[in-house]
Amino acid sequence: MADLVFTSMVDLARMIATKEVSPVEVTKAHLDRIAARDAELRAYITVCAEAAREAARAAEAELMSGRPLGPLHGVPVALKDLVNTAGIRTTGGSKILGDAVPAQDATVAARLRAAGAVLLGKLNMHEFAYGPEGLNAHYGTSRNPWDAATARIPGGSSSGSGVAVAAGLAPGALGSDTGGSIRIPASLCGITGLKPTYGRVSRAGVLPLSWSLDHIGPMTRSAADCALMLRCLAGYDAADPTSSVLPTPEYGAALTGDVKGLRVGLLRAFFLESAAPEVRETVERAARALEGLGATVDEVALPHMDDMAGASSAILAPEALAYHAEWLRTRAADYQPDVASRLRMGAFVTGVQYVRAQQLRTVVRDAVDAALARRDVLLAPSTPIAATPVGDTEISIGGVTADVRASLIRFTRPFNFSGHPACSVPCGLTSGGLPIGMQFVGRPFDEATVLRVADAWQRATDWHARRPPMA
Amino acid sequence: MADLVFTSMVDLARMIATKEVSPVEVTKAHLDRIAARDAELRAYITVCAEAAREAARAAEAELMSGRPLGPLHGVPVALKDLVNTAGIRTTGGSKILGDAVPAQDATVAARLRAAGAVLLGKLNMHEFAYGPEGLNAHYGTSRNPWDAATARIPGGSSSGSGVAVAAGLAPGALGSDTGGSIRIPASLCGITGLKPTYGRVSRAGVLPLSWSLDHIGPMTRSAADCALMLRCLAGYDAADPTSSVLPTPEYGAALTGDVKGLRVGLLRAFFLESAAPEVRETVERAARALEGLGATVDEVALPHMDDMAGASSAILAPEALAYHAEWLRTRAADYQPDVASRLRMGAFVTGVQYVRAQQLRTVVRDAVDAALARRDVLLAPSTPIAATPVGDTEISIGGVTADVRASLIRFTRPFNFSGHPACSVPCGLTSGGLPIGMQFVGRPFDEATVLRVADAWQRATDWHARRPPMA
Repeated sequence: MADLVFTSMVDLARMIATKEVSPVEVTKAHLDRIAARDAELRAYITVCAEAAREAARAAEAELMSGRPLGPLHGVPVALKDLVNTAGIRTTGGSKILGDAVPAQDATVAARLRAAGAVLLGKLNMHEFAYGPEGLNAHYGTSRNPWDAATARIPGGSSSGSGVAVAAGLAPGALGSDTGGSIRIPASLCGITGLKPTYGRVSRAGVLPLSWSLDHIGPMTRSAADCALMLRCLAGYDAADPTSSVLPTPEYGAALTGDVKGLRVGLLRAFFLESAAPEVRETVERAARALEGLGATVDEVALPHMDDMAGASSAILAPEALAYHAEWLRTRAADYQPDVASRLRMGAFVTGVQYVRAQQLRTVVRDAVDAALARRDVLLAPSTPIAATPVGDTEISIGGVTADVRASLIRFTRPFNFSGHPACSVPCGLTSGGLPIGMQFVGRPFDEATVLRVADAWQRATDWHARRPPMA
Repeated sequence: MADLVFTSMVDLARMIATKEVSPVEVTKAHLDRIAARDAELRAYITVCAEAAREAARAAEAELMSGRPLGPLHGVPVALKDLVNTAGIRTTGGSKILGDAVPAQDATVAARLRAAGAVLLGKLNMHEFAYGPEGLNAHYGTSRNPWDAATARIPGGSSSGSGVAVAAGLAPGALGSDTGGSIRIPASLCGITGLKPTYGRVSRAGVLPLSWSLDHIGPMTRSAADCALMLRCLAGYDAADPTSSVLPTPEYGAALTGDVKGLRVGLLRAFFLESAAPEVRETVERAARALEGLGATVDEVALPHMDDMAGASSAILAPEALAYHAEWLRTRAADYQPDVASRLRMGAFVTGVQYVRAQQLRTVVRDAVDAALARRDVLLAPSTPIAATPVGDTEISIGGVTADVRASLIRFTRPFNFSGHPACSVPCGLTSGGLPIGMQFVGRPFDEATVLRVADAWQRATDWHARRPPMA
């Protein structure tokens, strides 16, 4: 039974469809493991044990009656607790929404259910996806399962998603990514996380942080599982005016394992050059390994990266405040104080400043497109550092003292700003045994190529298959 | 010779290619007419007589030497004076840029030259495309050629473009359209004006007013001429990060003259219902005539139109100020006072307000898409009223007193807000003999269908062929 919780979603779906294993057993294995481990790991805010058992029994009954199965029939998933779920509280990691029970599923929740998935529960997260690292103020702080001795951060804001998938408390999860909140916990927890192209996955019914920077995507233990989930999630949604009408390919079919002739642009300036030495060397080694698999690698630089950070904040701050303004007036005391204070900064961004930030955005988007004009993907570390101890706010990177929070989003945020798809995969361990992640960045709406290279990497290596000490 | 200045661009291009007429004659006819009429009409800020004659001689020489000809070989055009022209002053209708001589052509200017067009000169406009109606403060006020007795406004801000094309001082011109500045003068001057889809035509080298609302497009005497110009203008430009990479069809080939089965959605609420009775009746008659040509017409309403106006201003104001802020500090006295005062309003729009306006925009864009999901085009009047006397700021529409300026942009601005392509065509005359315009609105990047229905209308009617009394 222990192995069921480390079986891939692709395999679980196949084993269930061929009746090798029952959805009821699969769900029970995960619920048992949550019961055994989550008091320490705190991945979940709400576990839907009874509803999950019932859904698993229903999935089994459908299987036995020979009804057509969805791609995730009987496969458990869990959702970051900002995805609305009908009849199940959706807290957004906040006290303010602590008793909120949505009447309707978010589009992504409904799509996963329609694909046959069994919902295990709702995952821990930073308050309103905006709280400080290492402090999930209202529902306990999730713990990175890679260090049993020291309490380390799992990365955020999709912290529970990273921990649950890494520690076998869910085979796959949804996260959201405004500045890196899927890829950062994927990197720090040693799992695979995909931020799709802006507009690829509906955000209807998902609590917003920053409407022009927010993305929803899958977090799993492999690129193949991300492809399976994305197939169920992607596509136009009339309820989300920012969702794209472009057609969605069958992502699984794109995973040929072949990267011969694939052109990879390695991002050194701003990225590799400001990563911790161990991270830099690991990603450089990975680039050479990709060459060994038949890819060609050259180096490329993106302009405006330093200005991008300020512009990204000038966009995020008023967008977040537009959503929170009323609660900040009426329920200020219910916010964790740092969150309220950061949200209030949005009031000091003028329309002119916001416009200039969005203008820079079109320039950066174009520059990333230009870098991809004759390359298939770009490659960079996902984070400059591995997981830090809970409570540490500063870290030394190559002898320079840096803020942990600012460092963690440094490499991920450019692609929220530009909107390009990016997938983080494990690519090694530090000398201290902590996961290192790298991200592949692709052309707009070309998740297929991003997933193809990530999957090829995982066929050739086993970093994604390592289990954390606390699992 | 008089007829040459009322010959279409399509015919001029053909007659030049077949050596029926010389580019030198065509240019001379236009320069002669400018010399005779422009003191009264004030369509031009700068006439490039010598350079035009030289370009015409060069075009003739190339023709004789049998070199391959561009689609506009030897055909004269004129440009709104906010399109940069290498070595020719580009004033933006302002005193501040009165001596500005760009080193480089704007992309659209370069593309017209590359297509073989002969540049006659630079056209009058409202100061910085933002000045009040009937007051081109620094270069004289353009006069609508449809009323010889009363000085009437030609509409703006592309006022010179409207007058020049209507009165035979240029067969085609470029205008820009932020809230209606192509379609309003097209409507009031009885010509055809196309605002393409946002992103279809490069704005690199064009003085901006509002980067997310500005569009560049052709103003001509027929839809067929618009198609010819658009063919030369459209397409991706690396120098404009907002320009689209989508391919451009051969627009001329789309003009089949056939509208059988074409589905037209007539916009009554907000549009027809608030137009002057004569305008409403004329457009209703046109809709019935389209049915007679085989189109089907139903009525459709767009939501959020009243909120859209405020949101549009909340977007335009800070975007305009982002561009003008430095000059407002250093050269305030050189602005016409109303322009400076309106620009300064941008400082009072907060980032949060701007964000909310842009969010409404995605909702409205989606609503226009939805209205077009089962229709090919939408139809509405271009302006609720015909040309008013210069200096009038109020007008009575169906017994209600309204502001002239606010009324003029009421029907055009929604499609700057939404980004959809829209083409204004003449569809009748008021009892006082002034032109009435209606606009066809199409799906994003489907200028071909918009131009097809406009052209079919013009094959079936002769409103676009009427000459104004002062021509």
